[in-house]
Amino acid sequence: MSHFRFAINVTPKPGILDPQGRAVEGSLGHLGITGVSDVRVGRRVELTVEAADPAMAFATADRLASEMLSNPLIEAYAVEELGATSSITSSAAAPASPDAD
Amino acid sequence: MSHFRFAINVTPKPGILDPQGRAVEGSLGHLGITGVSDVRVGRRVELTVEAADPAMAFATADRLASEMLSNPLIEAYAVEELGATSSITSSAAAPASPDAD
Repeated sequence: MSHFRFAINVTPKPGILDPQGRAVEGSLGHLGITGVSDVRVGRRVELTVEAADPAMAFATADRLASEMLSNPLIEAYAVEELGATSSITSSAAAPASPDAD
Repeated sequence: MSHFRFAINVTPKPGILDPQGRAVEGSLGHLGITGVSDVRVGRRVELTVEAADPAMAFATADRLASEMLSNPLIEAYAVEELGATSSITSSAAAPASPDAD
């Protein structure tokens, strides 16, 4: 079994009202920042999956993204491989993967 | 002036309590998903910056990330270039960059 690190990016679908994005745009003036537009605020979930191979790990991450982490009516998601893997033979001896952040 | 699309990923720093991540881990059993660990829930903000060159656009996105979108005490951020750019000469005629999601 190996450990695979993924990020799941969840963003409001195009056309869906994004009040948080509007709030950020409305606050730009206070910082004196200009030229920023189309702000969309979503979530980013990073997680480690233990699986026999990358395809199985990706399938688990994708299922988690579609069934728990996003609302398919208003949100789109993308599964991103972060590549921080550690091959191990005994999961009990496995340290957590170093976090990219 | 050109348009540059960025994503700003904001995640809880290592060691900082992440109640949302714990909640996701606690709910995995309901879906019958096993082997998922180290869940960290953060934010992803996508935005378009209009600037003369990529370096200036990146600087604006980075400033926005550090001064408004993240709390440096408990969160780390990373600025990711999404590469969806459109070179234009008149900003008034510019359509919004197509959204990657």
